[in-house]
Amino acid sequence: MSLRTPIIQLTKRASKSTISKLTTPASSLWQRNANDQSRSFATPAPPVTQNATSSKGPTAMVFMNMGGPSTTDEVGDFLSRLFADADLIPLGRFQNYLGPLISKRRTPKIQKQYAAIGGGSPIRKWSEYQAEEMCKILDKTSPETAPHKPYVAFRYANPLTEEMYSQLLEDGFGNGKGGRAVAFTQYPQYSCSTTGSSLNELWKWRQKLEGKSAGPTTANDGSITWSVIDRWPSHPGLVDAIALNIEAKLQEYPEDVRDDVVLLFSAHSLPMDVVNRGDPYPAEVAATVAAVMQRLGHTHPYRLVWQSQVGPKAWLGAQTSDTVSNYIAKGQKNMILIPVAFTSDHIETLYELDEEVIGESGHKDTIKRAESLNGSPVFIKALADIAKTHLDSGIICSKQMGLRCPGCTNERCAASKKFFAGQGLGETFAV
Amino acid sequence: MSLRTPIIQLTKRASKSTISKLTTPASSLWQRNANDQSRSFATPAPPVTQNATSSKGPTAMVFMNMGGPSTTDEVGDFLSRLFADADLIPLGRFQNYLGPLISKRRTPKIQKQYAAIGGGSPIRKWSEYQAEEMCKILDKTSPETAPHKPYVAFRYANPLTEEMYSQLLEDGFGNGKGGRAVAFTQYPQYSCSTTGSSLNELWKWRQKLEGKSAGPTTANDGSITWSVIDRWPSHPGLVDAIALNIEAKLQEYPEDVRDDVVLLFSAHSLPMDVVNRGDPYPAEVAATVAAVMQRLGHTHPYRLVWQSQVGPKAWLGAQTSDTVSNYIAKGQKNMILIPVAFTSDHIETLYELDEEVIGESGHKDTIKRAESLNGSPVFIKALADIAKTHLDSGIICSKQMGLRCPGCTNERCAASKKFFAGQGLGETFAV
Repeated sequence: MSLRTPIIQLTKRASKSTISKLTTPASSLWQRNANDQSRSFATPAPPVTQNATSSKGPTAMVFMNMGGPSTTDEVGDFLSRLFADADLIPLGRFQNYLGPLISKRRTPKIQKQYAAIGGGSPIRKWSEYQAEEMCKILDKTSPETAPHKPYVAFRYANPLTEEMYSQLLEDGFGNGKGGRAVAFTQYPQYSCSTTGSSLNELWKWRQKLEGKSAGPTTANDGSITWSVIDRWPSHPGLVDAIALNIEAKLQEYPEDVRDDVVLLFSAHSLPMDVVNRGDPYPAEVAATVAAVMQRLGHTHPYRLVWQSQVGPKAWLGAQTSDTVSNYIAKGQKNMILIPVAFTSDHIETLYELDEEVIGESGHKDTIKRAESLNGSPVFIKALADIAKTHLDSGIICSKQMGLRCPGCTNERCAASKKFFAGQGLGETFAV
Repeated sequence: MSLRTPIIQLTKRASKSTISKLTTPASSLWQRNANDQSRSFATPAPPVTQNATSSKGPTAMVFMNMGGPSTTDEVGDFLSRLFADADLIPLGRFQNYLGPLISKRRTPKIQKQYAAIGGGSPIRKWSEYQAEEMCKILDKTSPETAPHKPYVAFRYANPLTEEMYSQLLEDGFGNGKGGRAVAFTQYPQYSCSTTGSSLNELWKWRQKLEGKSAGPTTANDGSITWSVIDRWPSHPGLVDAIALNIEAKLQEYPEDVRDDVVLLFSAHSLPMDVVNRGDPYPAEVAATVAAVMQRLGHTHPYRLVWQSQVGPKAWLGAQTSDTVSNYIAKGQKNMILIPVAFTSDHIETLYELDEEVIGESGHKDTIKRAESLNGSPVFIKALADIAKTHLDSGIICSKQMGLRCPGCTNERCAASKKFFAGQGLGETFAV
């Protein structure tokens, strides 16, 4: 089953979960105590120390994500960019030859899958919605950096990084006028294959569009001043939003079995060579799961499992699909699958989990999937809190981002990290 | 390097870190707020609901761990038990033939290593000390279950499970007199290879010594009533104790480099077939690391790395030893190695990390190791808090323990889990 649902398919139809179906949870632990919690969870922050070029807004808030084809016509381009990305799929010196070959061969099949599930990914719509709503909150909570202008930059689909960057310049950022932009990854947990690849791409286009001579991010030379929100795996708002979706799904089970429903947190897997290189993603995904289970009070048995393995390489397990069939064989038929590493619906939820893992299990009534975060107001409030903490802190990026993976040999990664982290690890903005 | 430091060597000399060298930390975040925190972190607990046979003490507190040879003479027996354990090293139908063969061949080499590092593991001394000190605290904090009597049960070294169980019976537990015993794993994170194996062994001896007819753990039939503390990866006291040891080690660096020291959390690795079977250990170790980093305020870059891989199988990485040499090659020479999955010194800290990884790095001055928990008063207080919360809750074991790994085919594991978890998952004591 996993062979039919590769990493290539991170996308999906817009019909099933639409913005109009947003649910407002009756109560939210994180919302209820928002003031207290944001205080206690925030990194101890120095006073706002923006430099002269960005002491007032506007502030560009750039949501980075993988993206997906919004229509079946975009599948070909999407796949060809995906297989050209050596950060994600390293094909060595054959990249330029093999990449187009593989993507071309796969296009008809993947197009069919998109057609079968409604014809296009909802990720653009969700990303634009989430960014806009977050900026509205930020304008109120962080007036000193307002107005906040939402942008979206996808790695493999429109709007691409270069499109976003050109728009930034057109909107009056950079080009001698300076201005501040925040690259806000929409992958809660950092992997070099995802956030790392997006940052390398952003760095590349910054060099191209603002000139190689543009200095480091803190220089007051009229180029855009970038900072990065590079990970937020345990933010209490993220955790609460996921927990609320689990609690809502648990309510669908009869009371007599509800307490023993098994929770299966499912994240996109990584090839073992990436894991063994020291990629921080598996540990950060586990951090999210641990925080959600703590928020739930450890009321249910659970496992963290990994989906979407593809090809002959060794990948990190246990596999989501195998886990479900193994538990069914052991007599456990009440399970909730919980997407834990992606912030909106995509082909891995709507097709791989819903149609394949659940659809083919023979137990569609008792194996359910928790809703993706999509338009969750608790989640959007969390994004605003993460952004405000970042803006207040004066931090360019986390300490963790400055540290390359022990087994990394990617020089583009080294250069990009050096650029974003400034001269040291996790530098702060100069006053 | 890893080939010379197998799982077999979980042990170590008593000379280096002795009880007399206990340090009392100047301050402890967890201690300072102990009352508040134990309230907020405790599982919402029903009132004490012990059954008639254990409504008063004594309560046996049984520390379960792997153990290690206290003298070089014990190495042979230790290795032969280790290689006979199919939960740890599955050799299939050749177990009874291959196990003794391998252990006999390895004995002289391992004896030499013990001799080289002082001649014996300190784990018995530390375990007995920790259990005794914890019981003293419990007698005060949980008078309704006092007196608390400390026991130690090792899986591969003296005192073995059968020795502990016989002692329990001799001391007046069971044999028609009932009584309550708590199996308290000393592995903070659960793996089927460690805590699972210890529980399978405990269950085996319980059947042998109290008779196969003895009912489930909640039956009021005069046999010992067992409950299990099966994991505690994120307990704030554990987290604080590890963090304090890191902070102490950071103080040894000059101020100008202190902020950029890389923290390498190191845990014993698992073979990938165990990981892919769905063993919960990697995610729980990551939970500990995430909690420690949150407690530290994410002040330093870090990685979770895995040590002690051995043999031709694929194991989980990145490897600790490779990571250290890779970072040295990248110019990063300030690192602290932090043992994160074992509660006292053993051969993996004193020999593998200290003598091999650090000793052979060429940078003994700048690569350091955080002290193991050993006699840390913060840690022992944490143990007492975990135990009190367990005793108060009336819980037999965690919800999580009742759930077998998705890929598990071990019937002994199924039977043992069924016994300890009672009729359902995470049952509570009957009133």
